[in-house]
Amino acid sequence: MQRKNFLQSPVKHMKIDRALTVDSLIQQFRNAGSFGAGRLSTACDVYEQMLRDKKCTIFLALAGAVVPAGMRSIIADLVRKRFVDVIVSTGANMVHDAIEAIGGHHYKGNWFVDDYTLFKYHIFRIYDVFVPEEDYSKLDNVLVEIFDEIAKENRGKSLSSNEFSRELGKRLKDPDSILRAAYKADVPIFLPALRDSEFGYAYWLHASRNAFKSTLMVDAFKDVAQIIDICDRSPRNGMLVIGGGVPRNTVQSATLAAKKGMDYAVVITMDRPESGGLSGSTLRETVSWGKVKRKASKIMVIGDAMIIFPIIVASVLERVGENFKRVPYLARKKI
Amino acid sequence: MQRKNFLQSPVKHMKIDRALTVDSLIQQFRNAGSFGAGRLSTACDVYEQMLRDKKCTIFLALAGAVVPAGMRSIIADLVRKRFVDVIVSTGANMVHDAIEAIGGHHYKGNWFVDDYTLFKYHIFRIYDVFVPEEDYSKLDNVLVEIFDEIAKENRGKSLSSNEFSRELGKRLKDPDSILRAAYKADVPIFLPALRDSEFGYAYWLHASRNAFKSTLMVDAFKDVAQIIDICDRSPRNGMLVIGGGVPRNTVQSATLAAKKGMDYAVVITMDRPESGGLSGSTLRETVSWGKVKRKASKIMVIGDAMIIFPIIVASVLERVGENFKRVPYLARKKI
Amino acid sequence: MQRKNFLQSPVKHMKIDRALTVDSLIQQFRNAGSFGAGRLSTACDVYEQMLRDKKCTIFLALAGAVVPAGMRSIIADLVRKRFVDVIVSTGANMVHDAIEAIGGHHYKGNWFVDDYTLFKYHIFRIYDVFVPEEDYSKLDNVLVEIFDEIAKENRGKSLSSNEFSRELGKRLKDPDSILRAAYKADVPIFLPALRDSEFGYAYWLHASRNAFKSTLMVDAFKDVAQIIDICDRSPRNGMLVIGGGVPRNTVQSATLAAKKGMDYAVVITMDRPESGGLSGSTLRETVSWGKVKRKASKIMVIGDAMIIFPIIVASVLERVGENFKRVPYLARKKI
Amino acid sequence: MQRKNFLQSPVKHMKIDRALTVDSLIQQFRNAGSFGAGRLSTACDVYEQMLRDKKCTIFLALAGAVVPAGMRSIIADLVRKRFVDVIVSTGANMVHDAIEAIGGHHYKGNWFVDDYTLFKYHIFRIYDVFVPEEDYSKLDNVLVEIFDEIAKENRGKSLSSNEFSRELGKRLKDPDSILRAAYKADVPIFLPALRDSEFGYAYWLHASRNAFKSTLMVDAFKDVAQIIDICDRSPRNGMLVIGGGVPRNTVQSATLAAKKGMDYAVVITMDRPESGGLSGSTLRETVSWGKVKRKASKIMVIGDAMIIFPIIVASVLERVGENFKRVPYLARKKI
Repeated sequence: MQRKNFLQSPVKHMKIDRALTVDSLIQQFRNAGSFGAGRLSTACDVYEQMLRDKKCTIFLALAGAVVPAGMRSIIADLVRKRFVDVIVSTGANMVHDAIEAIGGHHYKGNWFVDDYTLFKYHIFRIYDVFVPEEDYSKLDNVLVEIFDEIAKENRGKSLSSNEFSRELGKRLKDPDSILRAAYKADVPIFLPALRDSEFGYAYWLHASRNAFKSTLMVDAFKDVAQIIDICDRSPRNGMLVIGGGVPRNTVQSATLAAKKGMDYAVVITMDRPESGGLSGSTLRETVSWGKVKRKASKIMVIGDAMIIFPIIVASVLERVGENFKRVPYLARKKI
Repeated sequence: MQRKNFLQSPVKHMKIDRALTVDSLIQQFRNAGSFGAGRLSTACDVYEQMLRDKKCTIFLALAGAVVPAGMRSIIADLVRKRFVDVIVSTGANMVHDAIEAIGGHHYKGNWFVDDYTLFKYHIFRIYDVFVPEEDYSKLDNVLVEIFDEIAKENRGKSLSSNEFSRELGKRLKDPDSILRAAYKADVPIFLPALRDSEFGYAYWLHASRNAFKSTLMVDAFKDVAQIIDICDRSPRNGMLVIGGGVPRNTVQSATLAAKKGMDYAVVITMDRPESGGLSGSTLRETVSWGKVKRKASKIMVIGDAMIIFPIIVASVLERVGENFKRVPYLARKKI
Repeated sequence: MQRKNFLQSPVKHMKIDRALTVDSLIQQFRNAGSFGAGRLSTACDVYEQMLRDKKCTIFLALAGAVVPAGMRSIIADLVRKRFVDVIVSTGANMVHDAIEAIGGHHYKGNWFVDDYTLFKYHIFRIYDVFVPEEDYSKLDNVLVEIFDEIAKENRGKSLSSNEFSRELGKRLKDPDSILRAAYKADVPIFLPALRDSEFGYAYWLHASRNAFKSTLMVDAFKDVAQIIDICDRSPRNGMLVIGGGVPRNTVQSATLAAKKGMDYAVVITMDRPESGGLSGSTLRETVSWGKVKRKASKIMVIGDAMIIFPIIVASVLERVGENFKRVPYLARKKI
Repeated sequence: MQRKNFLQSPVKHMKIDRALTVDSLIQQFRNAGSFGAGRLSTACDVYEQMLRDKKCTIFLALAGAVVPAGMRSIIADLVRKRFVDVIVSTGANMVHDAIEAIGGHHYKGNWFVDDYTLFKYHIFRIYDVFVPEEDYSKLDNVLVEIFDEIAKENRGKSLSSNEFSRELGKRLKDPDSILRAAYKADVPIFLPALRDSEFGYAYWLHASRNAFKSTLMVDAFKDVAQIIDICDRSPRNGMLVIGGGVPRNTVQSATLAAKKGMDYAVVITMDRPESGGLSGSTLRETVSWGKVKRKASKIMVIGDAMIIFPIIVASVLERVGENFKRVPYLARKKI
């Protein structure tokens, strides 16, 4: 490469001299093109490409306290609009969705409160969000009944994690619920570590009162074939990753098993690569595995997903317009 | 509190004027008592207290690429010495243990290599560690056979994740293996997200060749009761956490379900609290939940676990001496 | 505090269902109120309060490569609009401003280039921004002349760092320049570590060709009294901090010396507190010193300033309107 | 490069089965060779190489609260042993050295104290270190006298920052002081941002009582030539960087100005590269500038310097032995 090739595009300084829409600001970020601003504008481009690619299946991986912190409606809306096709989540996020679905709440709190006071008051803290214990207890009661019911209906049959979330979505009536929206939109929600959440505790209550007999049965491995199959049948695959952990790994492993590799990838994280964990690993590293293609449109944004993800959604929604209709490839295939 | 109470202990400056043992250095860190050095010296104290407390059960939570990076023997030794009683791990770490158990290797690499070259060479990168694909393939072949065998032996019966790892440990002959050492020492290894690893892919191969019939069956929820029971029967509980994620959450949830709360806690992480994820949440925050007791001996060390954890182990081993015998409380109870 | 007081404000989930202006998005962030989103919405509130407080002097502290990355115009505009009253900066940011003022450029590059190739091509890299060496050399030549001139005009007199930047601003003709805008708007730019930048090297060239005699003379301490005086004469003081380091410390020390303490504070940083550096220290910690008042409106946002700061500016500009006029308190006093 | 070249060195798992010296542990880290452990073992190697290279001048860059946190003696000892040749520091670290030199103290505190209580008690907090205001005031009084004295002795003459620290070192009698040790060992201490510290405030007191006439005069630029000259006269240069900020940049700029580039570099930091600041910039990036040579022995360790730096010092001291004599190249040249 010649010297001049390195000096092609001067940084155009951002200009903020009037009220801007979110996407106009992102265009300023693209003009500058550097550091986090450049990455964020690229992330918007990559998600826009995924949406406009009619042969792409879009995976949304959710780790971290996405729902408690206020992104429940954004995600439910993405599901309803078919702007995502598959969700892979921690159990906890669906627990928090269910808490609100049955009338519970998360409350704005703060991080400098005395935690022992909260303990005595039976209030749980998630950084600066408070959740009263009774909302968990109420959920436990509801779940125990639901689990009894699912167990009865599926005697001798074990469910996959996505069938489990479908059963929940079927029973939750709150239209704002992610689980409910996914059930109605036929968007599978995979929960590869569902026992690691209040679902595990509720299961234990349910199993205890049934003397550990004829209980709900979730097969830890059953969803593997199902998620691989989705990657396999999709001409192209893309992922939006909030956080990292098990959800990111599950999505990446599915595309690897399907011998495909992601065609698009946006990862939002605060983790760094040097300590070697999956959550902070670069998208470049995933190329060595074949989890993401070398030529994929891909970007990692370093930042708090509660800030970054809504910006991406707002920017891309503005680009495609409110009336943009997306029919998922696999849904079209089905017909 | 009076003013003078805040000004009791002057920082004593560290002195490094000759060859020091690891624990002598930690004593210098305690003298200084500040920032990371103070936290690290406290972490050594907390682990020492756990070991010397005859009524404490010690949980080790493993997330991140602990085994690929070289801590396999340290953990196997802790198991053999009964310096930990329960392991909760990502699936991946046990996959990497098994890779080495059947003759595979991890290789020292670097992080600035061209990943597409690695891809073409079928070499996978984990930051600066390389793993050849054939070592994974070899493991797949072994696992498929083992899964067939376990399925046959357990027809109609489903295993918990810890029973699954026990079955693996029984069949691996490598004395250096963590799975093997845990099998022999009767230390349970819980894998709350085991499908999210090569175990998931190997399961898929195994199930495919059995036409998805009569396959190995791991019950996603079965281990919940077992880990809660351990917390419940232990007069006191302590945790050593490397990383965060599902393993940390699983351990904390178990003690919460058992209505106990940890008495001791050491967490090593690079994650920060502000973005609200579990991995970076402070130990103070866990007090609100009752996952860790207000008066617990507890400390979070901010750093790379590959540096911090070996130091803690070396320092504490030096303190208790090579001949220190520890008999786990639950093992004594059994007899 | 009673239990119910902790459970007053439910998190209202963000809603993004149409094109939003930046401030509408920030209002959604306020509704949610948690993690980074909550902090960012608070930061916008705090800056708005500063702007609307007619007795507040606003300090902008700049560390990090703010100018190379594309925020030059934003800052120059803030100066022109009198939305900031005092700048405290690293030398480097003003060097980069001057590079562009004399026709040089920063270029969009990338972070995975081979740095030795860049070295051979005489291209300098700042993460993903490239700067050709000749633009630095051109600046050196200009600065040497300017320094000769300033030295001649100030024989036997030493300048403060802000007088130094004023002299530069006087001589740069580019209307887009921060230095120029500040000169015209009478906004002082303090450079407490100016020798730690290309200004230091240019000084060395200038001094060498003058045999180290009758050179430009900048008094390292002279600006101390001037910045303290500004804090002292202002009924209230506020700070916007990008990054940390010397600029943040200089601003905080000035308010401490004036025995005032900041009334408003917004800090944007990626640094964390545990390792004890000033850049990551919390605003709570500054209260112990008296650098920030206990009751100050204050918030720290954890994130990349290249994303966060433009959002704050856009949101607040939208709130106050394009025609909002602000006359700095000290300017009014002067008249 | 052929495939097999990537798979040369299997990770050897660390073994901790008895009391280990610090360097024995580092040898285990080298065997593993990965993540932070690998980087730390390399850092020890690089510092050892610097020490054994008879033609290398060693720069130590100090940012962050190195002295308050307990590393004062380590640094003073390195100076006395001539294990470093030049120090470049924030003003604050030398202020804290001086506080202890005149009988003040830093105290072990904690980070969860109420800061307003501290404020009322006139106790300043630096993360978990407390400093009573009276120790600062005492220092102010001493400094004002010293500044008067220096001013008198240097009428009409301006000092460089290193001459300033030399004057302080000459007057402080505490043998444990870094300033004192450096004075005696003829190790220059550059303070490129000295006004950004209590020195600035003390200057202001001193100048005020002298009606801003005939005051101490420190030339902001005078040290530039002196530090470049050191790089220039040294056949090889190496740097140990704690933190980043102005000290790191000053050292790197000196070697660049001398058209040399560092031959050895160890950087310890918690900062990350993506947000574009100097402190987190990689050593690879510095190669594009010529600040560090392509073939330099260089490594960046991600971690808390209060943990990492003492380990490096202990490991290297153990390697070279207590009786290792090092005569700095420039000192030998002088004779």
